[in-house]
Amino acid sequence: MGEVEVNKNILDDNAAVAAANRAAFAKAGVYVVNLMSSPGSGKTTLLERTAEACRGRLRLGVVAGDIETRRDADRIGRWGIPVEQINTGGACHLDARMVAPALAAFDLSSLDVLIVENVGNLVCPAEFDIGEHDKVMILSVTEGADKPAKYPLMFSESRLMLLGKIDLLPYVDFDVDAAIRDARTLNPKLEVIPISSRTREGLEDFVRFLERRRAECVGRR
Amino acid sequence: MGEVEVNKNILDDNAAVAAANRAAFAKAGVYVVNLMSSPGSGKTTLLERTAEACRGRLRLGVVAGDIETRRDADRIGRWGIPVEQINTGGACHLDARMVAPALAAFDLSSLDVLIVENVGNLVCPAEFDIGEHDKVMILSVTEGADKPAKYPLMFSESRLMLLGKIDLLPYVDFDVDAAIRDARTLNPKLEVIPISSRTREGLEDFVRFLERRRAECVGRR
Repeated sequence: MGEVEVNKNILDDNAAVAAANRAAFAKAGVYVVNLMSSPGSGKTTLLERTAEACRGRLRLGVVAGDIETRRDADRIGRWGIPVEQINTGGACHLDARMVAPALAAFDLSSLDVLIVENVGNLVCPAEFDIGEHDKVMILSVTEGADKPAKYPLMFSESRLMLLGKIDLLPYVDFDVDAAIRDARTLNPKLEVIPISSRTREGLEDFVRFLERRRAECVGRR
Repeated sequence: MGEVEVNKNILDDNAAVAAANRAAFAKAGVYVVNLMSSPGSGKTTLLERTAEACRGRLRLGVVAGDIETRRDADRIGRWGIPVEQINTGGACHLDARMVAPALAAFDLSSLDVLIVENVGNLVCPAEFDIGEHDKVMILSVTEGADKPAKYPLMFSESRLMLLGKIDLLPYVDFDVDAAIRDARTLNPKLEVIPISSRTREGLEDFVRFLERRRAECVGRR
């Protein structure tokens, strides 16, 4: 069996588990986001701020995916929301089969929104459906505006691009207009929210995105 | 054939090509670095500065690896050194088999140092030998000091960690001592050079590292 065929089988198997995950999300009425970015783009810090901002508005849960350590789950769990950690043990992305066992640890019907924090990687996570409603990505302004052209799949697959760490814009060479233009060339419907976990700029817009998409995808409470 | 067996065969095949690449490097007397980091850590900008700093000291060539575009090769080529671009067409790393055809485009014996710029990814590139003498990685201070614990293989495999974008240290929360301590827990012999392509701090130390390692690995000119 060749490498390509094995990859096709892996994706076929994954699609079946993703469909089961998707059915469980629909039954529970929970809106699910697959959050992706490069390592160090600020996924975990954004989730800490989001947990705080959602209090009294959205019941949030998080699955944190990493190759190793429980650091992300421990950081997010301090904000009083249910969190599960997945360690991939070397794999550079999450797939539906890795996520499925973690779901059993949640009472999904008690959640409005579940965010799955993928492994930090701008390539492979975009190839795997985990049963989510939306893929959301962060491109931090410290990474450079050339990333849409160089890593096109993630930008094509995402509904929302968070333009992260915008508090650092004065100190880096980052062409905001070029980054958005290149990303929308790949994906004309891509929504964009500039955001800073440090200043909280854009955070309210992100919470409103979660509220709106929850209503659109699974109906109102 | 299972996924694990296929992966083992891929690595076996790769090892054979890596050995051939290594023999070609030894014959030509060229010291070869496999340069790895997250997307947007500043590999290409560092190579532009390095090309400038090596003039009259080291004859440098570069292989630029990306999923798509010729942008990196075009940027580096402006500095008057030989450059080849590899596009992986989706693969999230370089392996020895992808690098081998690019080598044919160089007169290797006319080079002192060849730097292979890997795909931006903190995970998979560290798994593949391309026949290099040393793996060198960049951890930029905007990515956070938790990366050694979360992405241990790359830190274990590298001879040198460049602590990049240190001009941004005043504006980010990055614990330099913790990052170096955690990286050296994984790899006690890891060399570390703080560097900024913007201010050129550390650049001379990096060029001296290349000169020293070239002498150690392939002898003096």
